[in-house]
Parts: sequence; C-alpha cells; structure tokens
Amino acid sequence: MFTVRTPRVVAARRLHRRRDRDETGRFLAEGPQAVREAVQAGVVAELFATAEAVRRYPELTGDASLVDDAAMQALADTVQPQGLVAVCRQRDVPLATVLAARPRLIAVCVDIRDPGNAGTVLRTADAAGATAVVFAGDVVDPYNGKAVRSSAGSLFHVDVVRARDAAATVAALRAAGVQTLAADGYGDADLFDLDAELARPTAWLFGSEAHGLPKDLEADRRVRVPLYGGAESLNLAAAAAVCLYSSAKALRSV
Amino acid sequence: MFTVRTPRVVAARRLHRRRDRDETGRFLAEGPQAVREAVQAGVVAELFATAEAVRRYPELTGDASLVDDAAMQALADTVQPQGLVAVCRQRDVPLATVLAARPRLIAVCVDIRDPGNAGTVLRTADAAGATAVVFAGDVVDPYNGKAVRSSAGSLFHVDVVRARDAAATVAALRAAGVQTLAADGYGDADLFDLDAELARPTAWLFGSEAHGLPKDLEADRRVRVPLYGGAESLNLAAAAAVCLYSSAKALRSV
Repeated sequence: MFTVRTPRVVAARRLHRRRDRDETGRFLAEGPQAVREAVQAGVVAELFATAEAVRRYPELTGDASLVDDAAMQALADTVQPQGLVAVCRQRDVPLATVLAARPRLIAVCVDIRDPGNAGTVLRTADAAGATAVVFAGDVVDPYNGKAVRSSAGSLFHVDVVRARDAAATVAALRAAGVQTLAADGYGDADLFDLDAELARPTAWLFGSEAHGLPKDLEADRRVRVPLYGGAESLNLAAAAAVCLYSSAKALRSV
Repeated sequence: MFTVRTPRVVAARRLHRRRDRDETGRFLAEGPQAVREAVQAGVVAELFATAEAVRRYPELTGDASLVDDAAMQALADTVQPQGLVAVCRQRDVPLATVLAARPRLIAVCVDIRDPGNAGTVLRTADAAGATAVVFAGDVVDPYNGKAVRSSAGSLFHVDVVRARDAAATVAALRAAGVQTLAADGYGDADLFDLDAELARPTAWLFGSEAHGLPKDLEADRRVRVPLYGGAESLNLAAAAAVCLYSSAKALRSV
C-alpha cells in the first residue's frame, strides 16, 4: 500500500525545521549510505522507501514504509535521495559521559554557523580518531540535513555533545585533564612547534567562520597553523584538518 | 557619468561563462578583497564600481568605470559584491616556467569538478607555501567565479598552470626532479611514514571528488591519509590540507 502524504510523512517532513528537530529529538538521514550507518548505529525510528529503493536495497528496507515518488520528494532535502529517508533518534551524549571514557582527542565547534562546515568537522574529526565532537555556543544544529550529509556517516560514529556554554565546556575539559587548544590564526603558538604537547589528551576548539573563537574563551593555548605563502588564513575545514591530524600523528606515536 | 548596461558592461558580464573566459583570457573578481589582490597582482584590465564603492574604497577606484546598482547586479555573481567588480587578465604560466624556478611544493588538481574545491585547494596550497597549482585533465575552470571567491585571493598569489594531459604533467614534473605523490585513499604508503621523503621537492596530485585520480596515472607513490575512526574517507579539501601541510612541515625543517 502506498503512503502518500500520510500524517507520518507530514510529521517526518517537519524535521527539516530545527524547531521540530529540537522538540522531537529526531532528525532525517537521506540516501543509502547515511541510512545504512543509521541502521548500524541503532537510531532509526522510521524508514521511508520508494518501491524502487526496496528493490535496490532489500537489506535495508525490511521494515520500511512504502511511499511514492511525490512523498519521497517532500521528505527529501536533496534532489536525488535514492528513494530512502530515515527518521532517526538524535544521539546526544552528555559531556560527562564522554570525559568518563578518558578521551584522547575531541573537537569542539564554537559558534560555527555553516552546516557544511559542521558536517565536515565531524567527518574529519572521526577520520583523525576523535571520539566526540562538542557543539557549543550559538552554533548550527549538527542534525541539520546538510550537516548530516557533509558528515558522510561520521555523525553516527562519534559521540555528539551539545553544550550551551563554551566557557563551561572548556572548564569541564580542563578539570578532566584534557588540554584545550584554540585554533586561532593569531595564536601565539605555532602548531608545528607543539609536537610533545600534542601527544597529550587534547580538545581542539574551532570558532566561527567570520569571527573565530570568542576572545574571552580561556583555552590552554591559542595555536596558529603557520602560513607560508600569501594567504591570509585557511578556511575552517582546512584548519581543522591540519590541527586534528597533527594531533592524530602525535598520538599515534605514544 | 553612470554606465548602465553599456557594451563594456555587457561584454564583462559574458565572463560568467567559461567559453567567454577561455576565448578572451579574462575573468571577473568581485568585492574589495579580491579586487585589492588583483590590483596588487597587476592583472586588472577594467574596474566597475558603484558610487558608494568609490566613496568607500577611494584607493582602489581611481580608474573605475562608474555603474549603477542594476549594472552592478548584472555583473556580480554574488548578492553582495560590495559595489566592485574587476575584469582581470588570466595569469596562466607554462609548467616549464614553474619548473625552471626549482619549486619545492606544487599542487596538481586532476579532474576536479567543484569550483569551491578548486578555490579551496588554491588557498590551502598557497598557505602551505606551494608556489604553483596545476589544473589538469577534465578539470573545472580555476577562473570560475566561485573558484575565485573560494581561493580568497590565493589565485593571485600562486602560479596557475593549465595542462590538458595529467600524464604529461607527471612526466614533466619527474623529469625536473620533482617527486609526484598521489593522494589516494587506497594508496599503499601511509602519509605519516613518509617524513624524510616529504622534505624533497614534491608535487601532490589530487583527483576528482567522485572518482579520485585516474588509475593509470603513474605517480611515484600513492599515499593515503590514515583513517583512525569510522570515517571511510576525507573530503578533498581536508585531504589536501593534511597532505600539503605535512609537506610544509617537512620542508620547513630542511
């Protein structure tokens, strides 16, 4: 039986809005890759699939609600969701839980506004071996559709922490013995001079695309990625990649 | 005197199309930052400015053609060009010229399709101290408006080389004593095991977002950025940042 704009489709569709995601604690994941990761993470509350997708992905769609192409288009954020949209449970973890596991590498996004950047930091942090990504301050919703897509599944691999207050996050990290390194183009420490320090448990703090980190945020160090050519700065995703992988390399050798 | 859709505005506006950029050897740069870099690089052929921009940027607009807001909107790619659009001369350099300067670090974009990625690689390569970026194969136009914006001025700092044939580029690099390292998620060499090699003159090869580098491209090494978490890969911009900065660090110490 085909489900065309049933109440469940209408309710799921509302999850494109942040308010509805915040209220319900749910979000949408589109396409076979993201849905597969969501299934493996055990967070799928409901799955919508077209008949074509049921044929192509039988291993994923056993419990799917069948929808027609019009309903799929209404559900999907992208032009080609390949016939699969999952309603997922948000999987936020308290910072205390993350810290109890004695993490070696964490990324903290403060005031980041672009969902593509949030997703890219999730993906890069996961790749570099970070076990958690904290979203603090006036920050984009990591469950935004574009953030989910940009994370390429990493949203389902790392612990996602949401914190109102960036300063309280830094204090909690420090109290747990995790050093806080602020990525800052004007920082007084050169990333490439930090080798020994990078082998300690570390949280990297990344600030907003336009304004960087809050000036009054008291990290242990303000660290700059050195600039050798004429560029005035790196973009957020590139700076995060260089910082997180510098830690990954130092941590590998201990 | 205001210029509203004069023949010069109409001609400049055509430069949003690749065919017209290729035919004329010109391209557009928008906004005060890009225009300032273009002026410093000595490549501005013509500058259009609104009256407001002439007031705000007198140091840039001495020779500007005054246009009204409607003409500026027609010229600009972005919603807020801040009243400045420059017609610039493309500044391609032959690979032989680049090689004659005995470069230590080069980036080569092969088959990259997304202009934002092309611009980001230009910016990151510049920051890491690369002196040239080669665009080879079936590759996006680095003078595309979005590429120019994403490069954040770096298009005007590094030598831009355009090469039809990626294999011929690799051969020319090798003949000049520049090792070619292919960034490849399935590469047999781990980036973090290469320290001594990275201190040699190097060209990093980056492939398309969807398909990576051509399988038959014979680089000296195929190098993977190690993945420590659950992520299956890094995105192009992140991988390029990690690779180029690994070389920057190794080259700094020699």
